[in-house]
Amino acid sequence: MPENHIQLRDGRIVRSEAPLNLEMPFKTVESFITPTKSFYVRTHFPIPKIDRDAWWLHMEGEVEKPFALNYEELLKLESLTVPVTLECAGNNRHFLEPKVKGVQWELGAVGTAEWTGVPLSVLLHRAVVRPNAREVVFEGVDHGMLDDPKSPPGELRYSRSIPLEKAQRDVLLAYRMNGNDVLPEHGFPVRAIVPGWYAMASVKWLQRIIVTDRPFAGYYQTLDYAYWKRREDTAELSPVTELQVKAEIAKPSQNETVPVNSTMRIHGAAWASDAEIVRVEVSTDGGSTWKEATLLGESKANAWRFWEFNWKTPTALGKQTLVARATDSLGRTQPVHRDPDRGTYMINHLLPIEVTVAP
Amino acid sequence: MPENHIQLRDGRIVRSEAPLNLEMPFKTVESFITPTKSFYVRTHFPIPKIDRDAWWLHMEGEVEKPFALNYEELLKLESLTVPVTLECAGNNRHFLEPKVKGVQWELGAVGTAEWTGVPLSVLLHRAVVRPNAREVVFEGVDHGMLDDPKSPPGELRYSRSIPLEKAQRDVLLAYRMNGNDVLPEHGFPVRAIVPGWYAMASVKWLQRIIVTDRPFAGYYQTLDYAYWKRREDTAELSPVTELQVKAEIAKPSQNETVPVNSTMRIHGAAWASDAEIVRVEVSTDGGSTWKEATLLGESKANAWRFWEFNWKTPTALGKQTLVARATDSLGRTQPVHRDPDRGTYMINHLLPIEVTVAP
Repeated sequence: MPENHIQLRDGRIVRSEAPLNLEMPFKTVESFITPTKSFYVRTHFPIPKIDRDAWWLHMEGEVEKPFALNYEELLKLESLTVPVTLECAGNNRHFLEPKVKGVQWELGAVGTAEWTGVPLSVLLHRAVVRPNAREVVFEGVDHGMLDDPKSPPGELRYSRSIPLEKAQRDVLLAYRMNGNDVLPEHGFPVRAIVPGWYAMASVKWLQRIIVTDRPFAGYYQTLDYAYWKRREDTAELSPVTELQVKAEIAKPSQNETVPVNSTMRIHGAAWASDAEIVRVEVSTDGGSTWKEATLLGESKANAWRFWEFNWKTPTALGKQTLVARATDSLGRTQPVHRDPDRGTYMINHLLPIEVTVAP
Repeated sequence: MPENHIQLRDGRIVRSEAPLNLEMPFKTVESFITPTKSFYVRTHFPIPKIDRDAWWLHMEGEVEKPFALNYEELLKLESLTVPVTLECAGNNRHFLEPKVKGVQWELGAVGTAEWTGVPLSVLLHRAVVRPNAREVVFEGVDHGMLDDPKSPPGELRYSRSIPLEKAQRDVLLAYRMNGNDVLPEHGFPVRAIVPGWYAMASVKWLQRIIVTDRPFAGYYQTLDYAYWKRREDTAELSPVTELQVKAEIAKPSQNETVPVNSTMRIHGAAWASDAEIVRVEVSTDGGSTWKEATLLGESKANAWRFWEFNWKTPTALGKQTLVARATDSLGRTQPVHRDPDRGTYMINHLLPIEVTVAP
């Protein structure tokens, strides 16, 4: 589809109206913190209209002291402000061959915001988690019927779990995004922020937190946001969890024209889960040879890192294929080819950007 | 489809040739032990051709002493012979409205055989199960590709798990069915027999037994042979496990003509899981009024029980609707209506049999 036919909202590509899914054109990435108006939006159901003064958050399940608190009480608790990169588990799906179902995200279902909220560990401590607790389920207010013959019959609420250990480590219940109240489309009044995980875990419009004694097997943990993990002779259905190491090129963008025989800045961002980005390499010949890019700014846990590379463009006209490749401090790097076991998620194989060298 | 167009094999209805699925017409049920030639057949892939003398069974996973044994060694171990009723988890699926995918079993994907084999507890004891063990996975030799976009990519082996506690209690590794070697279509040379569970757990053509420290999430445990179990506001994907209490009418059969103003024997079988059948009731007016049937023979754990009811047929000609309803020693009885959460499995709501009263 020619770009001038793409419907935009606040500069974001409208992938669908109902439910609302908006993508940030990745070529517009300029600042470490993504402006809220540019941040991608992923929803599954109509955006709930929530009255903050009538809102309650319930903490229950395998805890000694279940409780509920309201917005005012939450804001009185200790809080943190941290930059966290959120990426949709289906980001880059547009580039899969053959085509698969799901929102056709290109490069921009990712962004970094400063989130302010209460550490979940504070609430878990207050509730006194029982020794048999294993997971923490986040339940959103958003709900509806699904058009999937394999989904549960009737109305379904969006819910997702994380291991207790992760819940106690670094998860936030966020009420501010980039210094302002979280917007309705981003989870007003309160959402989870699960650093280092694909964003399906950062449940929006939170209403219940349920501590469980067994792995949660809800729809978005099994039939959606799941993949087949090979174990010896078998494959097991596993929930999608941590971000996979990835670099994306912001500029030049796909099919852009670059000047012949000059110097061109290639730049983008790279991120990983529970590790630092230690190297980004760039290839300007489709992946045959690689040169190291410069990492910019300082490394921040669970946030992307910008990088740049000064490219001496060719002296001849024609097409060139640019590729970027990230490696993290655990030695993980991006695969050349797609792992078919991952279904339609966790897409981090090398993606080419084609440009035209012109006078 | 008129019955004279149904393809039969050894008196069984051919539901599909590849994979082979054969149903016993339930109206032919006469003996407590179903003759092997009449027993229903359920397969997912081509029937493996296994050389008994080259066959090995591997015991591994969360055990201190993994081992493998061959057929000769297995037959030297202590053995038991017990009657066990096996029922396909999709038995009665033909009667669901609206129609659903899957083999369209009517009443006869069920049968009772005498199984001879080695208690699984003997092999688990020999392997020395570790304290962290939770489940036991049975892996069959049968394998193939699935025509399901949600299935794991590539070849898949049939595998299924049961909790360790069940594995240690009453599961058999059976090599004889009704006194003879297990036939190829029933799992030659060795299959699992999991009493009281739907038969998807009684894995055929066994080759590996894997003790695991977490719930197994293979394809036949999650995307197939699973259903949505409601828990408060959420629904969780749960594997199909125990048989649901059920009575089926063998005779008269659907659309049969019965003589006016005479005495007619209504008979059938009833079964449950981990409980005795304590009552079977029969209605001859479509479920408005109920009378108690007579239970025949003696109650045997994990096997069906035959029952009969002498019906004084009406003095007027016309249609009559017969229904049977079983209740077990835990007070569980059959529901009038289908529970939609159960998807396409565990079908045990009341099923009417229509007959015509004629001179």
